[in-house]
Amino acid sequence: MDTMALIQGLDLLGTLAFAVSGAVLGNRRHLDLFGVLVLACVSAVAGGIMRDLMIGAVPPAAVADWRNLAVAIVAGLAVFRFPALPERMRFPVRFFDTVGLGIFAVTGAQKALTFGLSPPMAAVMGMVTGIGGGVLRDMLTARVPVVLEADIYALAALAGAMPVALGHWAGMPILPMTAAGVGLCVFLRLMAIYRGWRLPRAE
Amino acid sequence: MDTMALIQGLDLLGTLAFAVSGAVLGNRRHLDLFGVLVLACVSAVAGGIMRDLMIGAVPPAAVADWRNLAVAIVAGLAVFRFPALPERMRFPVRFFDTVGLGIFAVTGAQKALTFGLSPPMAAVMGMVTGIGGGVLRDMLTARVPVVLEADIYALAALAGAMPVALGHWAGMPILPMTAAGVGLCVFLRLMAIYRGWRLPRAE
Amino acid sequence: MDTMALIQGLDLLGTLAFAVSGAVLGNRRHLDLFGVLVLACVSAVAGGIMRDLMIGAVPPAAVADWRNLAVAIVAGLAVFRFPALPERMRFPVRFFDTVGLGIFAVTGAQKALTFGLSPPMAAVMGMVTGIGGGVLRDMLTARVPVVLEADIYALAALAGAMPVALGHWAGMPILPMTAAGVGLCVFLRLMAIYRGWRLPRAE
Repeated sequence: MDTMALIQGLDLLGTLAFAVSGAVLGNRRHLDLFGVLVLACVSAVAGGIMRDLMIGAVPPAAVADWRNLAVAIVAGLAVFRFPALPERMRFPVRFFDTVGLGIFAVTGAQKALTFGLSPPMAAVMGMVTGIGGGVLRDMLTARVPVVLEADIYALAALAGAMPVALGHWAGMPILPMTAAGVGLCVFLRLMAIYRGWRLPRAE
Repeated sequence: MDTMALIQGLDLLGTLAFAVSGAVLGNRRHLDLFGVLVLACVSAVAGGIMRDLMIGAVPPAAVADWRNLAVAIVAGLAVFRFPALPERMRFPVRFFDTVGLGIFAVTGAQKALTFGLSPPMAAVMGMVTGIGGGVLRDMLTARVPVVLEADIYALAALAGAMPVALGHWAGMPILPMTAAGVGLCVFLRLMAIYRGWRLPRAE
Repeated sequence: MDTMALIQGLDLLGTLAFAVSGAVLGNRRHLDLFGVLVLACVSAVAGGIMRDLMIGAVPPAAVADWRNLAVAIVAGLAVFRFPALPERMRFPVRFFDTVGLGIFAVTGAQKALTFGLSPPMAAVMGMVTGIGGGVLRDMLTARVPVVLEADIYALAALAGAMPVALGHWAGMPILPMTAAGVGLCVFLRLMAIYRGWRLPRAE
């Protein structure tokens, strides 16, 4: 019970962070209020919807349950009304985004395992959950998704999903694997941001 | 029976209008005949397919039934052969597009309710049905979806879906709610086009 | 049995060719290693996933089975490590891509028929299977999908899917229809490449 409540709470935190990132981009593109809200919602829920469609969890959680969408709308309204706020709070926004990425990757992989996917594909589904919203947000604004271009991001999501997948395969309890996954994802993102860890590019 | 026939007829009208808008854009981008037809079909059926995937109506109506696709192909062929026609008939095209948006929003919400979604999420699904085709059309031509940028459009679709969702929740008959939804959507679009109604943007 | 093995082998060949095309584009856009692998996988499996979502084959084959993804990852790694290779081997890459398109179109249509779709819509699903990966690859890199702009490509996929759909309707055996479909698709592509066959554009 406690574990579930913790995960759900963190899940809403991740939703909040992704919604903020979408709304910020909408403001920068001078979208109107409704466009900003759409972008906030897409960023927050699209990854989960993609995962749910692919694992057969229909209707997707973000469609069956109004809470994620409500959090995204409130976050979008706040960013629209106080556009300077995310700039001033750059550290917490980035922090929540990083934690949100880890949470989405971990919970996405767990849900995929629950629906019978093999551990490797469950890890991939965790990655999709983590990056899907940002990818669609960027496609909607006609730019190459930053998660494909920028520092270690999609890889951090995949790495975060792996302890869960491995733990399931090895029959280990969920809670420590969840913590390890989120921790690994956050660690890789922090190294990418503050130490400049990069993957190679072809010449 | 009469009501269903009316809704289906209007649904095909909306399909026609969205197919025309897709084909016009394809001509402007100098796509070849097949590209124009693909864009016509995508504009006409993608919104409904997105909705059906998310509510679990698989295979989607536009995949199970050939009529919507046939209407879209005929409309695409006509626009390809007579590219000047939509320009000369700008008023009817815009009129059908507006009515089509309202119809798709209303019928999309109704179908979502039939599949057990809650009224608020059914209204969102109605909006997705109305704007999905235009969004994918614009993504395919690598531009920011106009429905996110331009005058009240996605909001009109959401507003049009709301009477149906409210009516279902309040146990009211379908026909007047359908009429109210389409009317509200058309009214908002007309006000946006002719009176310049806009939503605010952040500064 | 033999037929199935042949089709599966050709399917993996098509997966390989599409993964190469995605990885080449990723290198050109200077994506990092992970971005290149994501683009290779998307190009190789997205068409099949779209088809499976729409015909109700959930989880999609490329999610339930790890082999297609493994082939795509190996191909992506090879292209990333030896970026000059696809340039030097331009003919085999183009050849595999053409054969892959035909195979995907044919096997996509067959799977759609197995799931109860009508022959015309099964042909459309075959086309979606063939072009879906390339379309999403191009959308992710923010350019108009080449399959919409360039020489006969989507049309070749649709044409390749048609013998299978017609053969199913007429109750004919699968193998010759498969061969005819792949052959027709390859023939149309070769004519487009070497003879400059084009579809008309509107003026």
